[in-house]
Amino acid sequence: MKAAVFYGPGIPLTVEDVDIQGPGPDEVLVKIHYSGVCHSDYRVLTGDWEYPKPMILGHEGAGTIEQVGENVKGLKVGDHVILSWIPSCKKCFHCISGRPHLCESYETKTETRRSLHGKPVYPEFRVGSFAEYAIVPESGAIKIRDDMPLDKACLIGCSVMTGVGSVINTAKVEPGSSVLVVGCGGVGLSIVQGAALTSASKIIAADLNEEKLKKAVEFGATHTIHSGKNDLIEEVMRMTDGVGVDYSFEAIGNVKTIEIAYEAIRTGGTAVIVGQAASGQKISIDPFEMSDREKKLIGCNYGSAKPDIDFPKLIDLYMMKKLDVDSMISHVVGLEELNEAFERMKKGKGLRTIVKIG
Amino acid sequence: MKAAVFYGPGIPLTVEDVDIQGPGPDEVLVKIHYSGVCHSDYRVLTGDWEYPKPMILGHEGAGTIEQVGENVKGLKVGDHVILSWIPSCKKCFHCISGRPHLCESYETKTETRRSLHGKPVYPEFRVGSFAEYAIVPESGAIKIRDDMPLDKACLIGCSVMTGVGSVINTAKVEPGSSVLVVGCGGVGLSIVQGAALTSASKIIAADLNEEKLKKAVEFGATHTIHSGKNDLIEEVMRMTDGVGVDYSFEAIGNVKTIEIAYEAIRTGGTAVIVGQAASGQKISIDPFEMSDREKKLIGCNYGSAKPDIDFPKLIDLYMMKKLDVDSMISHVVGLEELNEAFERMKKGKGLRTIVKIG
Repeated sequence: MKAAVFYGPGIPLTVEDVDIQGPGPDEVLVKIHYSGVCHSDYRVLTGDWEYPKPMILGHEGAGTIEQVGENVKGLKVGDHVILSWIPSCKKCFHCISGRPHLCESYETKTETRRSLHGKPVYPEFRVGSFAEYAIVPESGAIKIRDDMPLDKACLIGCSVMTGVGSVINTAKVEPGSSVLVVGCGGVGLSIVQGAALTSASKIIAADLNEEKLKKAVEFGATHTIHSGKNDLIEEVMRMTDGVGVDYSFEAIGNVKTIEIAYEAIRTGGTAVIVGQAASGQKISIDPFEMSDREKKLIGCNYGSAKPDIDFPKLIDLYMMKKLDVDSMISHVVGLEELNEAFERMKKGKGLRTIVKIG
Repeated sequence: MKAAVFYGPGIPLTVEDVDIQGPGPDEVLVKIHYSGVCHSDYRVLTGDWEYPKPMILGHEGAGTIEQVGENVKGLKVGDHVILSWIPSCKKCFHCISGRPHLCESYETKTETRRSLHGKPVYPEFRVGSFAEYAIVPESGAIKIRDDMPLDKACLIGCSVMTGVGSVINTAKVEPGSSVLVVGCGGVGLSIVQGAALTSASKIIAADLNEEKLKKAVEFGATHTIHSGKNDLIEEVMRMTDGVGVDYSFEAIGNVKTIEIAYEAIRTGGTAVIVGQAASGQKISIDPFEMSDREKKLIGCNYGSAKPDIDFPKLIDLYMMKKLDVDSMISHVVGLEELNEAFERMKKGKGLRTIVKIG
């Protein structure tokens, strides 16, 4: 199969012929139709996060089941699926507690079943969707309705789930709340949409990019802050009668903006870290102010997703036109154009790029 | 009236004759019977927290109503009361939201109504209970049942409320949870008791003081860690099959132990900052680990108390012998012995000292 292979930071991705085996007994072989280009791929590409190489990047994929292992009961050939980058064992503490996105088996090493010139090639986040096929555990492929377009479905698999989920699952924002979203990329805009879905009354979007702020308004932001031209905290205080927001969400993964998002919440408020920072970085928090004002700082991984339940739910919202995924897509490219897509991401140009594969 | 007056860090408290007026229309005059000596008083005494001086310290008081202002409807002369150091306006966002402990009027300046040689003397935290009398807003004196001994009642007003409340109100610990308590002073032991009240199955108490650890076991701790002799994190991991605790509570206000308490929680777990750090200090948190593992760090002020509801509730538990306050008291002294009480606190000797006043 064709796959975009990553050899290391600074080396452009190359599309190569990678060998892929059939699925193991509990696995499925998925033909990838579309894969979104996500900021987490960029973290791997730049070496911010280190993993074994060579690697097939990509984890925001949708496609169809091509082949199933002998123990697979819940999926059959031809099923439309979205890939989930946290397959769940259904048995560990977190899976049983309704938090499959924290599944303890996630880091378990398995056979990659992909090789190049006889040596293993690793799939990013156990997905590796910048390729014609992926082998994933049964629980890593979530069946969806057939009438959902796969070019939009792929984005449900990461950015939309993460953003909307951070609002409705992690923070559980109530109608009428005030919400700040720092960073308006794919995840940030999905947070804005999530806030709109929960009928937050003030949705303040902040970014350095005028185009993204315009987009945020289309997605439901009621206020915007150009954080290059204005002081973010001052503006938030001005917009909230000097008290700060009930909830803030950081969707960049930058130490400085996480601290600002935390500072922007009101007494008793909640700041959610959605953006994934580079390894080893630290934020600085005043513990007296935190206890005195009962502020909360909470981490969010994958929008606290229960993919089996949440992907179909988000798709229903999409089909009802309550969730806009179409407007998130600015570019559709082929596997060979991935390097240019990452260049655009680096420059903050455009919104989501999706790769058309199958 | 006699009151222990604080002139500044390093200057011993002196008992002096302070003038006190009658209550304003919305205030009550309380005759103080007992006042606990709390670590927050020590923060003021050492200058860690700065307030106007001279000041009458003390905020953990219980007594009887001596006189009421003309608008006061809910209290009458002779009522037994516990003083609350966060009087509530019943009207602001937080009071209406069921969080009166975050009442926005708390910092409002009012007439102190206490003076020495014609100059104002300020009551600590709007209470100032190291004195024969205190004038407080009506909502700062909570009526309790007459059969509750006032020497025990005073501790409900701060340390017991803060500790038990952090477990049952702030974190809402579920039965069967694993809990770590770092620091076993008056608040820490009350956290241990709170955890026992919620039927946590593992209650791990950590302290540098062997005597306090023994006390923690009496209050319900199932495991103890002498954190001078052992590595706290290693011990917690050993006691929790390597995953960490569901909840941790820091009850010292020390930057290092807050970071350790946070480190000790499991994936998806919650760390609660109960101890109040000195102003301007900072803790350092890895934001990637926080989002990746969905850890939560939350501040707790006054055990998220609703004093009107919670004080009577805690007193009922005391009268049913489900809450032990008696064992927390190691010393009973007079106003003149306050300096020695703070010396003991500094050296970590004994548990709670209460001052017998009226």
